[in-house]
Amino acid sequence: MASITVQLPQKSYEIVIAPGNIDQLGPKMLPLNLGKKVLLISNPEVFAHYGARAIISLQEAGFDFCHYILPSGEEYKTPQTIHDIYNVALANRLERSSTIVALGGGVVGDITGFVAATWLRGLNVVQVPTSLLAMVDAAIGGKTGVNHPQGKNLIGAFHQPRLVLIDPEVLKTLAMREFRGGMAEVIKYGVIWDAELFAKMENSQGLDEIDNLTPGLLEEILIRSCQSKANVVSQDEKESGLRAILNYGHTIGHAVESLTGYTVVTHGEAVGIGMVAASQLAVELGMWDQQSDRRQLALIEKASLPTKLPSGLDIEKILVSLQTDKKVKAGKVRFVLPTGVGVVTVTDKVTTNVLRGVLTGMS
Amino acid sequence: MASITVQLPQKSYEIVIAPGNIDQLGPKMLPLNLGKKVLLISNPEVFAHYGARAIISLQEAGFDFCHYILPSGEEYKTPQTIHDIYNVALANRLERSSTIVALGGGVVGDITGFVAATWLRGLNVVQVPTSLLAMVDAAIGGKTGVNHPQGKNLIGAFHQPRLVLIDPEVLKTLAMREFRGGMAEVIKYGVIWDAELFAKMENSQGLDEIDNLTPGLLEEILIRSCQSKANVVSQDEKESGLRAILNYGHTIGHAVESLTGYTVVTHGEAVGIGMVAASQLAVELGMWDQQSDRRQLALIEKASLPTKLPSGLDIEKILVSLQTDKKVKAGKVRFVLPTGVGVVTVTDKVTTNVLRGVLTGMS
Repeated sequence: MASITVQLPQKSYEIVIAPGNIDQLGPKMLPLNLGKKVLLISNPEVFAHYGARAIISLQEAGFDFCHYILPSGEEYKTPQTIHDIYNVALANRLERSSTIVALGGGVVGDITGFVAATWLRGLNVVQVPTSLLAMVDAAIGGKTGVNHPQGKNLIGAFHQPRLVLIDPEVLKTLAMREFRGGMAEVIKYGVIWDAELFAKMENSQGLDEIDNLTPGLLEEILIRSCQSKANVVSQDEKESGLRAILNYGHTIGHAVESLTGYTVVTHGEAVGIGMVAASQLAVELGMWDQQSDRRQLALIEKASLPTKLPSGLDIEKILVSLQTDKKVKAGKVRFVLPTGVGVVTVTDKVTTNVLRGVLTGMS
Repeated sequence: MASITVQLPQKSYEIVIAPGNIDQLGPKMLPLNLGKKVLLISNPEVFAHYGARAIISLQEAGFDFCHYILPSGEEYKTPQTIHDIYNVALANRLERSSTIVALGGGVVGDITGFVAATWLRGLNVVQVPTSLLAMVDAAIGGKTGVNHPQGKNLIGAFHQPRLVLIDPEVLKTLAMREFRGGMAEVIKYGVIWDAELFAKMENSQGLDEIDNLTPGLLEEILIRSCQSKANVVSQDEKESGLRAILNYGHTIGHAVESLTGYTVVTHGEAVGIGMVAASQLAVELGMWDQQSDRRQLALIEKASLPTKLPSGLDIEKILVSLQTDKKVKAGKVRFVLPTGVGVVTVTDKVTTNVLRGVLTGMS
């Protein structure tokens, strides 16, 4: 179907998108000189569906194989889980030339990436994302992370994968709510980078479940989203400039997730809420017009994503929480805001009063 | 006195060696664009001697300053200490543009580097090493690490400092045992890289305490050791090839440290023991002659470093422990062995029997 390159000064890598890729894991890894030992990390649901096929593929390609299944859910994205996996790596004598494979969604990918970044000062990692969100976002670009009680991904490192293998067919078993969450990131690419993707989504009958998408649109969504992410990451590997635009919707989104204990809204839902807020901030600042704001809102609603803050959430707490965001610079919160479909800018001109007003309107 | 550059594809940095450098911390950081907030990490002894001077220098240069003092000793180089520092970073609202300064020896430097590598996916780090070992080795090259109960530095990441500031005058307050430990790494550079340094040490009256070195030799030792390390790191930032030679003496050294719980021998003493063993292995393999072996042994003895294994240490346990070394590749332990003064090679030809024989002779 498609192969997209993330161009980097040190080690570039491919994002390979094709139906049936789960069975190609071993053969695709083979030419990349990834050692002989492989630790596969997954969660119970994904492993039940695709673990056996991934394992057979690895074994037939001649890899020595072990695995670790972690409980599902953001609440296990903790230092404790990292240490459990360190012990598995130790017991199975992983070497610096060995490879850890992440078979799962964003949580599995982030944890696996962090272990690979920090065990023996860095092992190879291969990402096999199984959620829409992980396919178009989390698996690409080398961001790894673990949650701290005070905030999401406060602990983390940059560690690029050696390969990203996407099998669109696995989306058929993805929970509907997870699919919608991933669609929030896809809509994000439409707003920040790819006006054509935005228009194609506007023309789609629905965006809320996979059966409401034409196969052609699903293909477009995966390729265009991955290409958008690859373009940005290739230009700014470690988020010193351009890459900040990928955080569109994430600044307020992270605060919402964190303040509700990561249990009320999914990451994608939080990003959707964050994009609604960011769009309105941009309107308030006169950077983008109400019609564009309505077009974005319509897409988010078409994906059946929430557009209001979770009930009972204290807006003042959001304002405080934003001060601990990773993207705070010299004490000022910086927002990514749209100026046109496909174009965003970064600004620190959002005042607390404007922010309070927009958030109050979303309560 | 001297400035040495570590040349890297992404961010090169300087090692600045000069008496009185502690008072230059702030001014030297200023032109490097290291943010406004600084978290200084140190241990009680070092902080008592030099903390105030470092702080005054930072404050006068206009930095916002906070600090964290960790207990002294390898036994605190743990994930728990890392998490304590994360909480300090959070409480003081460190940002991604902020800087963490390590003022101390190898433990402080390794921990500080790991926090800087993994908090907010990477902050700046400045190394101000106060032990001889940290000056000539640990502070340079971006290796960071934390101990796992099963082995030293099993948890870690590569994260290069933005500046290494060395003040030779602080060695006057260094404990004698620590000075000797650092001398083990200096002797290492003589064997693996710099025959002239080796010869200069042979000509010195003593190597066991700072007062037995001429000021000229101390200067030579610091500059030549830092230059050796900088040369190797510049050619191989992430230990994919040449950099392995820096592990001369460390393979067996790490096993000895780990099996004695990091309390019986210092790191430098362990490296000295490891070099004695490696030299004898090289003799056994016919790679280097007995005279060279004796010359190296004489230097190690001149530094009053141990040349025998700690009493009661089970040799079979060393053999098992070597299998978990980070440098194991495809199950084979790789040793760095000398072939001439200033030249080493990497080999996996050491059999368990030869190893057992050499270690038995050192019991």
